[in-house]
Amino acid sequence: MYICGIEIRPEKSAGRTVLQTVLHARNGTNHHENHLTIFQGKIPMIGKFNHVAIVVPDIDVAQVMYRDVLRAKVSGIEDYPDHGVRVVFVELPNTTIELITPLGEDSPVAKFLMRNPDGGIHHICLEVKNIMEVRDRLRAEGVRILGDGEPKTGAHGKPVLFAHPKDFCGTLIEIEEA
Amino acid sequence: MYICGIEIRPEKSAGRTVLQTVLHARNGTNHHENHLTIFQGKIPMIGKFNHVAIVVPDIDVAQVMYRDVLRAKVSGIEDYPDHGVRVVFVELPNTTIELITPLGEDSPVAKFLMRNPDGGIHHICLEVKNIMEVRDRLRAEGVRILGDGEPKTGAHGKPVLFAHPKDFCGTLIEIEEA
Repeated sequence: MYICGIEIRPEKSAGRTVLQTVLHARNGTNHHENHLTIFQGKIPMIGKFNHVAIVVPDIDVAQVMYRDVLRAKVSGIEDYPDHGVRVVFVELPNTTIELITPLGEDSPVAKFLMRNPDGGIHHICLEVKNIMEVRDRLRAEGVRILGDGEPKTGAHGKPVLFAHPKDFCGTLIEIEEA
Repeated sequence: MYICGIEIRPEKSAGRTVLQTVLHARNGTNHHENHLTIFQGKIPMIGKFNHVAIVVPDIDVAQVMYRDVLRAKVSGIEDYPDHGVRVVFVELPNTTIELITPLGEDSPVAKFLMRNPDGGIHHICLEVKNIMEVRDRLRAEGVRILGDGEPKTGAHGKPVLFAHPKDFCGTLIEIEEA
């Protein structure tokens, strides 16, 4: 891209100021980037990206693919009978990929695997400091919480809940208090 | 869980030793955890988790959900006409969520949105140091590379390629040289 002009656009939105540089290219297109968000008194509620969960039809094959083909650092195959899943943790420098396959008859990921027999990306998990505060905020905005709405103890031993994907951009989001 | 025994299991596999502690609980279940992988002369090929890409039907709604409901740090809406997408970057402390919607007539995510009208998780992007080395290793293991197999310049201005989801646990994986 050949830059031939830079415009700086401050935008007021939801109590914060967004400074956006718009790069005007020679070919007439505009490229919006180098954005900077300045929060005004609001503390972000969402912390780290804890993991992405991928449901796979064969956990042994998945472990080999990540360990021996991508050469990532992977765990052994771990059984979580209380959660109805077997898991391999792929430990990347900044977050974790969880490879998951059903365990037992009432696995919560069995239906997903029937709909996606090759496997697929199941959910993302985001960390929060106060899960009840986030739950109430989600509900206040019309987002349904799955199950009875009370946090459960997740596979990491911490309180978790799931927001309804229909209410959140088609994405199943797990919130974990960490 | 009440731990009543710990077993340490060294396993030789693919040129590395996996030390796995198996926690024997009082209720008779075994909990495999506290794993440690020791690489023997192999440098992991995969680096950071660069981003997860989520295709959404309405980028304005998605921006509001992440900014005002989850209170995450989000960018403005950025147009990438060369890539056929509009993107909002959700900047978490350790990685990025990219909210993507089709732009123009030949958007690479248009078909995905037709199949998933509520939106959905589209792909994950992993960083590597040498994209050609990883591509050749993937191919040698029978993983198809999308398109003509040559790295393209991605939306971040860096070389990228995509592995075929049918060959990789049902997951579309983007590899980015970073």
